[in-house]
Amino acid sequence: MIVGILGAGQLARMIALAGHPLGVEFIFLDPAADACAHPVGELLQGAYNDPLQLEQLAQRADVVTYEFENVPAEVADYLASHTQVHPSPQALAVAQDRLHEKDFFNQIGIPTAAYQAVHSLQALQAAMLAIGYPAILKSRTQGYDGKGQSLLHSDADLPAAWQLLQGVPAIVEGFVPFNREVSIIGVRNPAGEIIFYPLSENQHRGGILRVAQCRAGDALQAQAEDYARRLLTELDYVGVLALELFDVDGQLIANEFAPRVHNSGHWTIEGAQTSQFENHLRAILNLPLGATQPVGHAAMVNFIGGLPQTEQILAMPDAHLHLYGKAPRKGRKVAHATLRTHTAGQLIGPLAQLAALAEQVDDS
Amino acid sequence: MIVGILGAGQLARMIALAGHPLGVEFIFLDPAADACAHPVGELLQGAYNDPLQLEQLAQRADVVTYEFENVPAEVADYLASHTQVHPSPQALAVAQDRLHEKDFFNQIGIPTAAYQAVHSLQALQAAMLAIGYPAILKSRTQGYDGKGQSLLHSDADLPAAWQLLQGVPAIVEGFVPFNREVSIIGVRNPAGEIIFYPLSENQHRGGILRVAQCRAGDALQAQAEDYARRLLTELDYVGVLALELFDVDGQLIANEFAPRVHNSGHWTIEGAQTSQFENHLRAILNLPLGATQPVGHAAMVNFIGGLPQTEQILAMPDAHLHLYGKAPRKGRKVAHATLRTHTAGQLIGPLAQLAALAEQVDDS
Repeated sequence: MIVGILGAGQLARMIALAGHPLGVEFIFLDPAADACAHPVGELLQGAYNDPLQLEQLAQRADVVTYEFENVPAEVADYLASHTQVHPSPQALAVAQDRLHEKDFFNQIGIPTAAYQAVHSLQALQAAMLAIGYPAILKSRTQGYDGKGQSLLHSDADLPAAWQLLQGVPAIVEGFVPFNREVSIIGVRNPAGEIIFYPLSENQHRGGILRVAQCRAGDALQAQAEDYARRLLTELDYVGVLALELFDVDGQLIANEFAPRVHNSGHWTIEGAQTSQFENHLRAILNLPLGATQPVGHAAMVNFIGGLPQTEQILAMPDAHLHLYGKAPRKGRKVAHATLRTHTAGQLIGPLAQLAALAEQVDDS
Repeated sequence: MIVGILGAGQLARMIALAGHPLGVEFIFLDPAADACAHPVGELLQGAYNDPLQLEQLAQRADVVTYEFENVPAEVADYLASHTQVHPSPQALAVAQDRLHEKDFFNQIGIPTAAYQAVHSLQALQAAMLAIGYPAILKSRTQGYDGKGQSLLHSDADLPAAWQLLQGVPAIVEGFVPFNREVSIIGVRNPAGEIIFYPLSENQHRGGILRVAQCRAGDALQAQAEDYARRLLTELDYVGVLALELFDVDGQLIANEFAPRVHNSGHWTIEGAQTSQFENHLRAILNLPLGATQPVGHAAMVNFIGGLPQTEQILAMPDAHLHLYGKAPRKGRKVAHATLRTHTAGQLIGPLAQLAALAEQVDDS
């Protein structure tokens, strides 16, 4: 069985590491010759719309999936007409455009912040009368890890923020005064079976995830599952999906969803009976889904821009290091480490220690 | 960091899967072009004493290790004179010859069955006066999974058993009337730090391991650790070592040791905080060793000669499947599955179910 993956970064790498024990082999398509999944599969180097490489991928892969959502729509369409593609190009299209995504959330009864598409500075200024400050101006497409976003505090911020977008289609959203950020990872297979992981509680800074912690038994689990189930069902989705939510005094407001395995689910490698990576493969290969119950207590810390001495992490008895094989670069995720402990209390000290190690090298 | 491995079977494959998250890449040397570790590293195809391939390996690998002990002694010696080799050729030499191994056990105070080297049928007949029946006649070298062994019940069995050996150096050992078979896996790094996993209780049939179960808290843990510590220390050993023992009414008798990761430790992937594969790498790379405490309750079942429908295994909520990517062949280990449960009681039903699945396809 051969799975093709668009993208050969750390997500593809971790999917492949989960897939070999299931007897799956991998072909990746990535523009970078040194893309970090290369040691665990075959790398086709080329643009995502390179016709020859896409033909290879379509011919050789039994199923194609992707590790990020910003591939050209025509690529997913081409592949879907030649082999199986999961999740579907339709799900990808919704996730690729913040306006369609927000419209879709509201259509299926998932609450969001107030938002409005804007096509000019004048339209932005007019929209702010309805939205109110603070607000966030975002490009409709291509954004991730906080890229292409400006926080707006007053009318005075609008011209510069608009300028930054350089005319790309945009959306302005009301800022949600959240108590905390959480995400839920759900999995659906072609038979329509749906399972969820425990909520992850997430800490971002500068739009980039820093720490994620498994919150098994959280009071908002059922509300999050309800929203994620609507998404999975209405999109006729196959694979892993991550829904990011704001907790506002016990009410969940949707931020965005990712049609793929997600950074806030990396703790599932050690902290759940079956990892998100293995379950994504089980789903797209139409195999029985694996149990998602927590194993001990788990939290994950990202290493961004640089790494501490890895010995410092390896010397922590409950830590599990995951290097991505990527050269450090400003703002680049190069590794994560997951703590898994027997009791919740045992997590606290090492988590603070690990987060401090990450802070020391973080240049973002 | 590049680790070279002599052999590219399932042990090398699982070492590599554990090594990528530590940022390690792999080169394997194996005679088989389709050796099953090939998707997770670079395969050099050639005999273990192929001079050109050995030169490649010595030049490119920062450290060389092996996945089985029956490589020619001159190969380990050559590599050790050109790069780091762990465990040492000396440890390998002791493990390769059952006579040296038994002598060494006794030298360092580890009890064994009565044994005697035999060089002729006459010598075998004479030895049996001292050893007594039942006994086992084994080739001194090259045996694994019960190959090259004959069980002796009376003088009448001797000529045929001797014939089978076709003149290779042999050893006859008294049969140990054991209550159960256990093994202990120890790890030692270059600094002399030593750690142990909980005992594994093992069920063999036809000389091949069928089931292994983690026995954390076993009454014989300290005795087993004492023996394994002697071995690790006296051999100045670096890496993972497995010592197989017979439990005879609470006294442990050594059977043999393997200078490598071991089938009876496969449950450590899910059932221990750090797997034997990761700890082998940590040891040979002179990194801090990882915690060995159990995670839940774990047991492993081997699939030999064939596989059931993998969906049957994947549908068991506590099961973890490990396919090796090997074509089924009589008596060949093609996969294992590990059960990890929250309580000891939860293990019983699924373990019986999994063992029954393995029996159905087992042709050995």
